[in-house]
Amino acid sequence: MTTKEIKVYRDLMGANEEWAAKTRALLAERGILMLNLIGSPGAGKTALLEGLSEQLGKQMRFCVLEGDVATTRDAERIQALGVPVSQLLSGGSCHLEAKMVYHALIDMDLDALDLVVVENVGNMVCPAEFDIGEHMKIAVLSIAEGDDKPLKYPLLFQESKAAVISKIDLLPYVPFDLAACRSYIEKINAQIPVFEVCALKGDGLAELVTWIRSQAPS
Amino acid sequence: MTTKEIKVYRDLMGANEEWAAKTRALLAERGILMLNLIGSPGAGKTALLEGLSEQLGKQMRFCVLEGDVATTRDAERIQALGVPVSQLLSGGSCHLEAKMVYHALIDMDLDALDLVVVENVGNMVCPAEFDIGEHMKIAVLSIAEGDDKPLKYPLLFQESKAAVISKIDLLPYVPFDLAACRSYIEKINAQIPVFEVCALKGDGLAELVTWIRSQAPS
Repeated sequence: MTTKEIKVYRDLMGANEEWAAKTRALLAERGILMLNLIGSPGAGKTALLEGLSEQLGKQMRFCVLEGDVATTRDAERIQALGVPVSQLLSGGSCHLEAKMVYHALIDMDLDALDLVVVENVGNMVCPAEFDIGEHMKIAVLSIAEGDDKPLKYPLLFQESKAAVISKIDLLPYVPFDLAACRSYIEKINAQIPVFEVCALKGDGLAELVTWIRSQAPS
Repeated sequence: MTTKEIKVYRDLMGANEEWAAKTRALLAERGILMLNLIGSPGAGKTALLEGLSEQLGKQMRFCVLEGDVATTRDAERIQALGVPVSQLLSGGSCHLEAKMVYHALIDMDLDALDLVVVENVGNMVCPAEFDIGEHMKIAVLSIAEGDDKPLKYPLLFQESKAAVISKIDLLPYVPFDLAACRSYIEKINAQIPVFEVCALKGDGLAELVTWIRSQAPS
């Protein structure tokens, strides 16, 4: 009787942490800030980047890594603005992992960057669980999604260092209690600033740019 | 030298299929239809159930199983309408699995039911991958999320037997091309009906109720 060889695979989360650490070291060497934008499909993450690009581009040299399950639509939108961008396709997976982010990052011209913004796969749950080597996660929640989402998806708001309430222009048209939403975020994570923005009209973007700028490694 | 015992765990997806099969058998015995509503956080799944409940309740005896990462908020909303409901908390997981659904189901008064509607955890990616024993998945996509979501999250629309475009009243206020969205859904799954609804105002609900009724096992 022969003994079959037993294959032992390494803990995937452990491997993820190693790639995240490599990314963090690479960013630290160069003094680059990396943000990880997380929110539902349609929360307005790509529109936020489009809205931010002009003002942000005047203050920081930045690139975007676009995470998606499928299509290069979001990367095309960012490329149209003249911002360096790569598309990270998760292959059906519900979140980005650190290894893919690292490999996309080392293909960028890092000497020409102060800031990397990663737009994660549209999902309020899974991306919050994965370290991709970023300095901070930022939660994006649209007015159309309802004010109770911080309570219903608490991990994202616990893990984030800022929250963006997007599509603020829809307030007159949907049931959404802004004060209640802010109190739910504060209940989960009292430390974080909350920005109210309308990316399409430009409202609130200047404050967000100033804050991002203030987070740059010294 | 002693040989360490190697623990072998059963394939989790396999176990999920077994529980799903048990659920399907239970439903078949009783002639009960089960729907699995899937969409982003804030797509309007709970509001859709609230909107449907009166008309649907006149034609079918139904209960709701509310899936969430956290809180019993959605179950409370359904209970307020006098509809039998249980809350299924995923414990941080991004989707419902068949075992929990089965156990919630057997605690319901099955003799008093024609229809079970499961509202899955808010997420366009993961719930589409899991069979919970339902007859059909139904994709819910809100106008506020953008018309390209069927292309960006294709599995959900491939797996669904109907699609609901919700919050249709927001059309004047957001960039959303309804014809384009319908063509994207058709490209991914030409077979499925697409319902346009505004749950808060009642628009389009009668057509959806009629369709649900027509899906009942004979």
